[in-house]
Amino acid sequence: MQYYDRRNLDFLLEEVFKIQELSKYDFHKEHNLEAYKMVLDACTDLSTKYMRPILKEMDVNQPIMENGRIIVHPKMKELMNMFGEGGWINAPLSYEEGGQQMPYSVFNATMFIMGAANYSASVFPFLSAGAANLIRSFGTDEQKATYLDKMYAGIWQGTMALTEPEAGSSLGDLVTSAQRTEEGYYKIKGQKIFISCGDHDACENIIHLMLARIEGAPKGTKGISLFVVPRLRPEANGELVFNDVETAGVFHKMGYKGAPIAHLIMGEKDDCRAYLVGEEHKGLNCMFQMMNEARIAVGMNASSIASAAYYAALEYAKERKQGRKLGQRGKEQVTLIEHADVKRLLLLQRAMVEGSLSLLLECSNYADLIRLSEDEAAREKYEALLGLLTPVAKSYPAEMGCISTSAAIQCLGGYGFTNEYLPELFYREARIHPIHEGATAIHGMDLLGRKIAKDQGATLRILVAEIQRVTEEASKHPQLATAAVSLGKSLDKLVEVTMNLSMKAMQGQMEAFLSNATLYLDAFSHIVLAWQWLKQGLVACTALAEKEDVFYRAKLYTLEYFFNYELPKTRALFASLQANTNVTVEMDESHFF
Amino acid sequence: MQYYDRRNLDFLLEEVFKIQELSKYDFHKEHNLEAYKMVLDACTDLSTKYMRPILKEMDVNQPIMENGRIIVHPKMKELMNMFGEGGWINAPLSYEEGGQQMPYSVFNATMFIMGAANYSASVFPFLSAGAANLIRSFGTDEQKATYLDKMYAGIWQGTMALTEPEAGSSLGDLVTSAQRTEEGYYKIKGQKIFISCGDHDACENIIHLMLARIEGAPKGTKGISLFVVPRLRPEANGELVFNDVETAGVFHKMGYKGAPIAHLIMGEKDDCRAYLVGEEHKGLNCMFQMMNEARIAVGMNASSIASAAYYAALEYAKERKQGRKLGQRGKEQVTLIEHADVKRLLLLQRAMVEGSLSLLLECSNYADLIRLSEDEAAREKYEALLGLLTPVAKSYPAEMGCISTSAAIQCLGGYGFTNEYLPELFYREARIHPIHEGATAIHGMDLLGRKIAKDQGATLRILVAEIQRVTEEASKHPQLATAAVSLGKSLDKLVEVTMNLSMKAMQGQMEAFLSNATLYLDAFSHIVLAWQWLKQGLVACTALAEKEDVFYRAKLYTLEYFFNYELPKTRALFASLQANTNVTVEMDESHFF
Repeated sequence: MQYYDRRNLDFLLEEVFKIQELSKYDFHKEHNLEAYKMVLDACTDLSTKYMRPILKEMDVNQPIMENGRIIVHPKMKELMNMFGEGGWINAPLSYEEGGQQMPYSVFNATMFIMGAANYSASVFPFLSAGAANLIRSFGTDEQKATYLDKMYAGIWQGTMALTEPEAGSSLGDLVTSAQRTEEGYYKIKGQKIFISCGDHDACENIIHLMLARIEGAPKGTKGISLFVVPRLRPEANGELVFNDVETAGVFHKMGYKGAPIAHLIMGEKDDCRAYLVGEEHKGLNCMFQMMNEARIAVGMNASSIASAAYYAALEYAKERKQGRKLGQRGKEQVTLIEHADVKRLLLLQRAMVEGSLSLLLECSNYADLIRLSEDEAAREKYEALLGLLTPVAKSYPAEMGCISTSAAIQCLGGYGFTNEYLPELFYREARIHPIHEGATAIHGMDLLGRKIAKDQGATLRILVAEIQRVTEEASKHPQLATAAVSLGKSLDKLVEVTMNLSMKAMQGQMEAFLSNATLYLDAFSHIVLAWQWLKQGLVACTALAEKEDVFYRAKLYTLEYFFNYELPKTRALFASLQANTNVTVEMDESHFF
Repeated sequence: MQYYDRRNLDFLLEEVFKIQELSKYDFHKEHNLEAYKMVLDACTDLSTKYMRPILKEMDVNQPIMENGRIIVHPKMKELMNMFGEGGWINAPLSYEEGGQQMPYSVFNATMFIMGAANYSASVFPFLSAGAANLIRSFGTDEQKATYLDKMYAGIWQGTMALTEPEAGSSLGDLVTSAQRTEEGYYKIKGQKIFISCGDHDACENIIHLMLARIEGAPKGTKGISLFVVPRLRPEANGELVFNDVETAGVFHKMGYKGAPIAHLIMGEKDDCRAYLVGEEHKGLNCMFQMMNEARIAVGMNASSIASAAYYAALEYAKERKQGRKLGQRGKEQVTLIEHADVKRLLLLQRAMVEGSLSLLLECSNYADLIRLSEDEAAREKYEALLGLLTPVAKSYPAEMGCISTSAAIQCLGGYGFTNEYLPELFYREARIHPIHEGATAIHGMDLLGRKIAKDQGATLRILVAEIQRVTEEASKHPQLATAAVSLGKSLDKLVEVTMNLSMKAMQGQMEAFLSNATLYLDAFSHIVLAWQWLKQGLVACTALAEKEDVFYRAKLYTLEYFFNYELPKTRALFASLQANTNVTVEMDESHFF
């Protein structure tokens, strides 16, 4: 069964973001579009042949604890080897580092494909990549020599070990301690929870990139350091010795069941050795590299899941006959897809999936240009845009993924609620994304309170200019002119609302300033997505001017859906953001009984 | 753990809908408020002691097939006896019919309580009541004598058997056949799917109220007849003989797992006897009685589940410490409930739960007045309002239930996604409601295409007048005046949009007229809910004029939330409803590939 649309992925990479132009940079000079397509072919092949077939099994037979270890699906070991051997963990690295110098755009596209095939399985290699990349960026040569090859080969699993029982969103409150020793390493004591792939039997070893507080460190986020904490530590003689990282339990979840989420206890025998990565107390800065990568990945995977659900719903809607069109009483039943409301549900999913993917590839493209660009000003611009858009690229697909997979269920009616079909699985999986890698509210505050406020809107103005460039171009196309005007108006309103909110901050009403940051993020996201749709629309219009083609025509229909059904949601959000109420600040606990 | 708020239920019944005034009618003259409260006490007691404790067990150990029968939780047998003995199945009936002459308002309130305690378990008695009530309304004396006592006693289970493999939303396409016999009964052949409580071992017998087509009947909905089809048919000697209703399977679902949803095959041995209820070919008219009851029940249960999730989230938010308020860096962590965005999530749930419950009790009150009122004109008015509001009372709580339970999960963060806490269970359960008893799209078309269109808006005008009566009163209270203006404006806009849409119908553009009926229903619902909030607000204002009280103050805060965060959503919906697009009609299958 189809789980993503290759034509659309090619359209975005080639026609919208023109990845072939990356070949003008030395780093990618040996690549071309054909090579990129072969990568996507190979990824699709792997995903279809090896990942998709175990999707449901991994949901039904979730990881279990056995003798203090977590046991995952037996095929994961083979898969990890394939990920390692195929270069699916380290493809973006340079040749010298063992990579393939693959653009991030292409690599992230492969993540999209794998996530759509089997989200839980796709998380294992991604986490290894993120953890290994941290060592690569901030680790010592010895650390690199010790860990990287095995991690990139899929033999050792990497994790990001941040959350603790009392420190989730409030990371600065973590209490896991690291004690200096004379041998140079640190000794860890503490607990970590919700550690994805924190323990399992598909890899020989688990390498935690762990945040902890060195004794005597300042309170809060400025006293956090980053460590490598292997489950088994490699001794000088090559032997692997248990490093006192006990697996206390595995979490049982609503979805995303195939990936083992562990509760770990370190240092119960006072023998958990940790190796500092980067400088003392600067761990959070290092970790942000991985968190930012992970945020884009979460957006990508949320879109993946919604994509898989969309194609499941679409297949059903094309086959299942039910009811008639209005005024056709007595005639044969028609397929579901002939009903306007079913088309609306399908368009909703398509608009969210293809719009999200476009934004995520835009971000990936920025990441490429940041790495490649020799022009400092250009790099700074892309860095600013990527930073500003990261909360959107994480949260819009995450939140919309829940709505989109719900629409997929609705297309199937009663069957959609049963496990005979896949949408209910995707609906359960999708719900993790607004939670992990920063709950949506955190990203709202990151966007409004940090990314926009930090430079009095300078970064925001860069984005506004980018969007205006597109609306101006679109306004020249009769088919897009109305949409361009709508987006322009919404953008003006966004700027106005941003200024009004900033007034509150300037008046010192910080709580009121940020109390509706989640709504602000939602409105902001819709405008960003409208921009992405207009970009796609421009390409489609140009192509249609040459000759009629159902793919581009459908793009314009989906754009039409977005601008008439989704973008108007900003009206409600702006109304709330400008309403004369402070109820969520004023009301206190005593009013909740 | 709390699963509903008794103070709020009392407030609605006593202060908003004044059920004590029903005692002025002969039928209820022996009742009073105290008696009603005792009923709610008893229901809460039963729910807390017997239903809540098996909530999770029923989710984990879902019904299974064994030797052709469905096996449910072992406690269900005891529970069904308790429901029967306590009168929880037939309380609204007259004394002569074995009931307690309980107002529907009170009975529906007990359904709310039970559904909040354990939705799956609460479905069993409700279905028996609905099926038995159909026999009571349309059955022969013999049928009544044969079935009613056992069904009301909880010894026999009742069902509504409508859906077939090829006929879900399109009920008129059902093909189950009924062949006349010389003995007076009919012989059934066919299949039914998704039959709630369609088979299980907690009752001695299962009595299906089944729709089938008598041979030679007209096509479509006008050729459908209603039958009693017992699983075991009672012979003249009192013996129960297998009636050729085979259980082909049980559906495994995402939630609502405790209730057995059966696939039935009738007449494989040509020995499935059925007994006509009402007239031939008029079965759907009869069934509508049960369907309308069921729609209110679905709304009630969707609100129940959201209520249970809300109190689970609230409890967590009050206990769990995480983060600090802005500007309090370095201080102690505060509880989640002190964060504005968490309060917003809690207010969202509360506004949806309490608003939905208010609307559902309004509908229940109409049902009471229809039964009691001797004034023909008054009765007609209440019938019109109940009919108009039924799609809203079913669909708003159903759709909002998904959003509300999702907000509950979000309050718990990572823990909300695990089965250590209850919100994920409620999130899964809630998702059934937009599907069963008519998918949301069906109710949109029922509202706009039938209820409003049938009399050129005459019924709509009755509702508009009711709402205006409340806005006028509210406009006299300084605390409600702004809200009254908002609602008034939204109502004007609704009337305008309704007229614009009706123009399309008059021009014969039926598909365009109804293509956005789901959005119309959504906008309409928000206005209806705003009306319910204003009604509650009026009572709260009056009470606060006497003395300050945290309950009434919180009501006004929740109203403030609703008017500033929920009602504005109509702006987006109206914009879409008036947008110059026909994309969901124009786009055809070829554009989906």
